Amino acid sequence: MKAVRWTNGDKPELELHDESTPSPGNHEVLIRVHAASLNFRDQVILDGQYGGPTQENGVPLSDGAGEVVAVGNRVSRTKVGDRVSASCNPFWIGGPMLAEYHLNSYGISADGWLGEYIVVHENAIVHLPDYLSYIEAASLPCAAVTAWTALNLSSPLQPGQTVLVQGTGGVALFSLQVAQMFGARVLAITSTEEKAEKLKALGAESMVNYSTSPDWEREILKLTNGKGVDKVIDIAGEKTIVKSAASCRIGGEIAQVGFTSGIGGGLPPIDVLARSLRVAGTAIGPRINFEALLAAMAQHEMKPVIDKVFPFAKYHDAYQHLASGKHVGKIVIDVAH
Amino acid sequence: MKAVRWTNGDKPELELHDESTPSPGNHEVLIRVHAASLNFRDQVILDGQYGGPTQENGVPLSDGAGEVVAVGNRVSRTKVGDRVSASCNPFWIGGPMLAEYHLNSYGISADGWLGEYIVVHENAIVHLPDYLSYIEAASLPCAAVTAWTALNLSSPLQPGQTVLVQGTGGVALFSLQVAQMFGARVLAITSTEEKAEKLKALGAESMVNYSTSPDWEREILKLTNGKGVDKVIDIAGEKTIVKSAASCRIGGEIAQVGFTSGIGGGLPPIDVLARSLRVAGTAIGPRINFEALLAAMAQHEMKPVIDKVFPFAKYHDAYQHLASGKHVGKIVIDVAH
Amino acid sequence: MKAVRWTNGDKPELELHDESTPSPGNHEVLIRVHAASLNFRDQVILDGQYGGPTQENGVPLSDGAGEVVAVGNRVSRTKVGDRVSASCNPFWIGGPMLAEYHLNSYGISADGWLGEYIVVHENAIVHLPDYLSYIEAASLPCAAVTAWTALNLSSPLQPGQTVLVQGTGGVALFSLQVAQMFGARVLAITSTEEKAEKLKALGAESMVNYSTSPDWEREILKLTNGKGVDKVIDIAGEKTIVKSAASCRIGGEIAQVGFTSGIGGGLPPIDVLARSLRVAGTAIGPRINFEALLAAMAQHEMKPVIDKVFPFAKYHDAYQHLASGKHVGKIVIDVAH
Amino acid sequence: MKAVRWTNGDKPELELHDESTPSPGNHEVLIRVHAASLNFRDQVILDGQYGGPTQENGVPLSDGAGEVVAVGNRVSRTKVGDRVSASCNPFWIGGPMLAEYHLNSYGISADGWLGEYIVVHENAIVHLPDYLSYIEAASLPCAAVTAWTALNLSSPLQPGQTVLVQGTGGVALFSLQVAQMFGARVLAITSTEEKAEKLKALGAESMVNYSTSPDWEREILKLTNGKGVDKVIDIAGEKTIVKSAASCRIGGEIAQVGFTSGIGGGLPPIDVLARSLRVAGTAIGPRINFEALLAAMAQHEMKPVIDKVFPFAKYHDAYQHLASGKHVGKIVIDVAH
Repeated sequence: MKAVRWTNGDKPELELHDESTPSPGNHEVLIRVHAASLNFRDQVILDGQYGGPTQENGVPLSDGAGEVVAVGNRVSRTKVGDRVSASCNPFWIGGPMLAEYHLNSYGISADGWLGEYIVVHENAIVHLPDYLSYIEAASLPCAAVTAWTALNLSSPLQPGQTVLVQGTGGVALFSLQVAQMFGARVLAITSTEEKAEKLKALGAESMVNYSTSPDWEREILKLTNGKGVDKVIDIAGEKTIVKSAASCRIGGEIAQVGFTSGIGGGLPPIDVLARSLRVAGTAIGPRINFEALLAAMAQHEMKPVIDKVFPFAKYHDAYQHLASGKHVGKIVIDVAH
Repeated sequence: MKAVRWTNGDKPELELHDESTPSPGNHEVLIRVHAASLNFRDQVILDGQYGGPTQENGVPLSDGAGEVVAVGNRVSRTKVGDRVSASCNPFWIGGPMLAEYHLNSYGISADGWLGEYIVVHENAIVHLPDYLSYIEAASLPCAAVTAWTALNLSSPLQPGQTVLVQGTGGVALFSLQVAQMFGARVLAITSTEEKAEKLKALGAESMVNYSTSPDWEREILKLTNGKGVDKVIDIAGEKTIVKSAASCRIGGEIAQVGFTSGIGGGLPPIDVLARSLRVAGTAIGPRINFEALLAAMAQHEMKPVIDKVFPFAKYHDAYQHLASGKHVGKIVIDVAH
Repeated sequence: MKAVRWTNGDKPELELHDESTPSPGNHEVLIRVHAASLNFRDQVILDGQYGGPTQENGVPLSDGAGEVVAVGNRVSRTKVGDRVSASCNPFWIGGPMLAEYHLNSYGISADGWLGEYIVVHENAIVHLPDYLSYIEAASLPCAAVTAWTALNLSSPLQPGQTVLVQGTGGVALFSLQVAQMFGARVLAITSTEEKAEKLKALGAESMVNYSTSPDWEREILKLTNGKGVDKVIDIAGEKTIVKSAASCRIGGEIAQVGFTSGIGGGLPPIDVLARSLRVAGTAIGPRINFEALLAAMAQHEMKPVIDKVFPFAKYHDAYQHLASGKHVGKIVIDVAH
Repeated sequence: MKAVRWTNGDKPELELHDESTPSPGNHEVLIRVHAASLNFRDQVILDGQYGGPTQENGVPLSDGAGEVVAVGNRVSRTKVGDRVSASCNPFWIGGPMLAEYHLNSYGISADGWLGEYIVVHENAIVHLPDYLSYIEAASLPCAAVTAWTALNLSSPLQPGQTVLVQGTGGVALFSLQVAQMFGARVLAITSTEEKAEKLKALGAESMVNYSTSPDWEREILKLTNGKGVDKVIDIAGEKTIVKSAASCRIGGEIAQVGFTSGIGGGLPPIDVLARSLRVAGTAIGPRINFEALLAAMAQHEMKPVIDKVFPFAKYHDAYQHLASGKHVGKIVIDVAH
C-alpha cells in the first residue's frame, strides 16, 4: 500500500512509501482509508515544535474515515463493510484526559490516516451516519470533538446560553455549529467582512471585527446587555485571553483549546477571582463525546464546513494550504483518489 | 447598643456609636453578638480599595457568632436561645454565586457583626455544634467556608489526593485542616521555619520555604514523584499563579481565592491547555457549604486556629494586628467583653 | 381586592373574598396579577390529600404572571412596571431542594396567585421576554420548570439524545418542547390517536398508544434499535415505572415527576443494578432554572400549549376542567378579566 | 501452568487443568498470580444464573494480585517485577459504564485469576503500595472498587455525612472502611451481636440489629435526629430497598450494588418523588477509581478485612465457604502456595 511517513530529526519531511499492508491484531481492525483531514497540530509536528511524544517515521494525520476491510480476533464493536471513523486516542473512551493516552495517538505516536490503509483499535471506532460522506466524516475526529468537549467542559451547554467563538478555523466553525445544535446563541469575532459573512451564513447571530474593533470585548458586552457571555471558546491564546475573560459573565467559562496567536500572554488571577470565572484546557475528548456528536449530527443532519479537498497525490499542497491560513473550515485529502 | 460604623468617603474610618437595638422583621432574627472575626477584605474596605458595593456608614465584619434573642414573623429555621453563626450572603443558600448576592452581604453591603446586636435573615443562620465556642465559631463564615468551597470547586476532593496550600493566613490554615478532614494529603509553602513548624503541627506533610527556594514548584514536583499535586489553593495571586500551575498534575486544579501578593501577573493560556488544567475563582460559598463544614467539624471536632482575641474596646488594635501580617490563623474580637 | 381562599378543615372549599390589598415589606414586591394557571397539585390540596405543609385559609395557585405595581425597601432585582412571573419557592434560587423551601411556597404554604394582587419576594422574580403574553407566562412556574429540571436531573440533556415522555399533561408537553430546544429527539406514549396527533404536531418523532400496545416498552426499544432511550420523564408513577425502566438504555435515567396513575407500584432493585440506571425525583426546581428556561424560550420563541383560558369569575369551572382530565396542555385563569 | 476452568453447560463445574503458559500480545502483560479472591458473583456464574456474557471454559475469579513477569509490545504502563493488581474490565479506564466493557471482563468473559499465570491488558494494571500484601491486594478489584464508586455515585461523599451500610459482606465492610477515609460517619444494620462487634471494631458508630428490630429504618432515623442518612449502600435489594429509602434524608441517595436478599421487591415511585431521592445502580467502577482507592489506602494504610485464606489446592473449600454465608470480609485463595 501507499503511505506517507515523516522523516526523523529536527526538521521532519514527508515521504511517500510503498509498503506492505498491515494486519489487524487482537481487538484491531484494518480500514481502507477514504479520506483524511489536517489540523493545525499536524503542521506543528512537521515544524519540530510539537511538545508531546511522537513516533519515529510515523504516518501523519489523526483524522480520517474509511471502510472496515478486515477484523482481528476478539473484535465485537465493528465488522467488515462498516463505514467508520476513529477517535484520535483509542484508549480514551470516557472520563478525564490521562497522560497515558498520548502514547497511542493516531498520526502522532501511532500511525495515522495518510495512507491507503490504517490499523485501528476497535475501541476507537465510531460508526458513520448514512448522510455523512467519507470526506465530511474525515473532518471530525480532532476539531469537531474538541468543539463538543470544549462547549461542555466546565458545565453543560444549554439552549438560551450565549457562546463566543473566535475566527473561522476548524474548531471555531465546529463550535459555532455544535453550539447551535445545543440551541445556544453564538457570537463571533473575526478579521474580515468576508469571513463575517461566512459565519453569519452558518448561523452566528452577531460578529465583531477584531481588526477594526480592537476593544472587541466591549462590543461583546454590549451584545449581551452588559452581562457577558456564558462561554468563550478561546482558540487564539496569547492575544485573546484577557479580552476573553472580560467578555464573560460572572461565573462564566473559558475553554482554552488553542494558541494560534502565540504561546505567551497571561490571565491575571484577580480577573478569575473577581468574576468567579472557570478556565479549563482540553485536548480533543473521549470517544463517547465523538459518538454523542455523531448522534446529534445525525439528528440535525449537520454538515461540516469543508474548505477544500485535495487528491492523495497532492498532499503537499494540502499542507501548504493549511500553512497559508486562508482556509475557512477543514482541509481534506481524498486518499481514495 | 454599641456598634462600630465606618464613615463615608474615600478614606473610611471606624467610629463607635451608641444606637437603638434593631428589631427583626419577617424572616429575620436578632442575635446578641458574642464574637466577630476579621478578614483581609475588611482592611481593603477601610483602604477604600474594595471593588464591590458597600453600604453607607455600615457596621463592618462579615464573620461572627452569638445567641438568638428575638425572632420576627415567619421564622422557622431557628429560635430564641440558639447558638448560631450566619452565612455572609443570606440569600446564597445553594448553587452558583450570583452577582445579586453581593447586594446583601453582612459587613459590606449590610450591617455586620462589630456591634452588640445584629439582625440576620433566617436563611443565613447556621447552628453551632456544642464543642465550638463563640470565639471559635466567629472565625468560620468567610475563611473556612472559602476553604471548603475552594477544595471542591472544580471537582470533589477525595482521600489520597494531594493539596498545596500557601502561607499561614486564615484561608490557608482552614484549607489545610479541611483537606485533612477529607482524608487528603497537604503540602505547603511558607516563608519562615517558625511558620513551617506551625503548619507541620497542624498536619501538613511537607513544607517548602519559598524565600529560600524561589523555584518552589520544583520541590513540589519532587514531593509528588514528578506528577504534581491534584489541587492548589492559590491565595497570593500575582506572584504564585505561574508556579501554582507548574505544581499541578495533568488535569489538576487551581482554586483562585486571594491576591495577597498583588493584582497583576498572569497565567499563560498554553499552560492551561498543555496540561488540561482547571482554574476557577470563588468568593466564599453558599450556606449549605457552611453547614456541611460544621457537620464535618463536629464529626472530627476540628478546632480553628485562633491567633489572638481582642476585647471589643480594642477593635482598632485588632485591625492593626491584621495589617501587620504577623498573625498565624484568625484574629477575633470578643464583642461580649 | 378580590382573592380566592380555601377554607380550613379536611375538605377545603374555595371562597371569593374582598379584602385589602397587601403591602410589600423589605425585599418584597406587589404584583397586579394578570393570569394564573392550575396544576394537578392544586386539586390534591383541595382533596385534602396534599402531604406537605399548607397555609390556613390560603390563596391557591403557585403559578401566575403580572405587572409589578409597588416595591418594598431594599428591592434591587425588579421595579414598578416590570412584566414578571415568580418561582414557586422564593428562597430556592440555586442548588439542591431543601425541605425548608416548602415552608414558603406560593399557593401552598404562602398566598398564591388566585387574587387580583400578590406579594412576592424579590428573589422569586423572573422577567418575561416580550414575546410571551401574561396568559402564556402564567403556565410556566411549576410544570415548565419541572420539565427543564427533570430533563437535566441526573445528567445534562444533549442534542441527539432520546427522551421518552408520557401523556399530554402540562409537564409532558413542556418536556417535549424543552427537549426539542436542547436538540433532543422525543418519543411519547399516549392513549388516543387524537392526542398522538397533537404530540406529533408539537414535534414528537414517534408515539406509542399504551391502550392498544400495553407492552409499549417493547415498541420504545424497537424505536431505539433495541438500545433504549437516554431519559424517561415518568409522570404516571405506579403503572409506568417498571416499563419506564425497561425502556431505558444501560446507564439511562428516569426522572420521577408525578404519580398520576397511583401511589403504589415499585421498581425492583435488580432492574436498577443490572442496567446501571439512575432514578431521581424532583419537585419543580430553583429560580435559576426558571431563568434558564426563559432565556431558551426567548431564543427559540417557544410557545406554551394552553388548553383553555377561563375568566376569573369562572375559577370553579377551571378546577372542574382540570379534574376531568380532558385537557391537553395548561389551564389558565385570566385574573384580569 | 496450573489453571482452574469451568465446564460449559447449564451446571458448570470447576476442573483443574495443566496447560501452557500464555504469552502477552501488544499492550498485554503476563502476571505470576500470587492470590485471588472470591465474590458473590463467582458463585452465581457456577449456579448458571449469571445474566451477562460468559466465556466458554473460562478461568474464574475477577480479583487477584501478582507480579509482572513478562510484557508484550507497546507496553508503557508497567514493567517486569512490578507488584500489581488489575481492574476487572480492562477497557473501562474512566467515565460511565458501557455495555461493551462486559465483553472483556476477567473471570467472566475473559480468563480470570484462578491459575498460576494470567495475561492482562496493560490498561487494567494498577500498582500496589508497598504496605499491602498480595493476599490483601487480591481482595480489592471488585468489592472495594464497588464501594468507592457506590459512595460517590450520585454525588461525592464528604466528611461529616452519614452513610448506612448493610451486613458484613465484602462490599459492606469496604464501604465502611472507605467511608471512614472520606471522613464520614457510618451506621450499619446487621443480624447478630457478633457481627455488630466486628463492625464497631472497624469504626461503625452505631449498629441496628435487623433481626430483632425489623423496623430498623425507624432506628436509623432516630440516630440521625429524624433527618435520615445522606447515603445508603443497598446490598440486599428485595428485602431492604423500601426501608433503605425510608432511612434517607430529603435529597438522599441509594447506591444499588447487590441483591443478596432476592431479585424481587420494588421501590414505589412516590417515595422517590416525595423525598427527591436519587437511586442509582453500579457495577464495580473504572480503573481510575481503583487507582484513587489505592492512593487513599496508601495515605491511610487501610487494611482490607480478610476472612480466610485457602491454599490453591483447596479452591473448592473456598467456594463452599463463600456459599455458607458465614464469612465476615473477603475469602482469598493463596495461588502461590
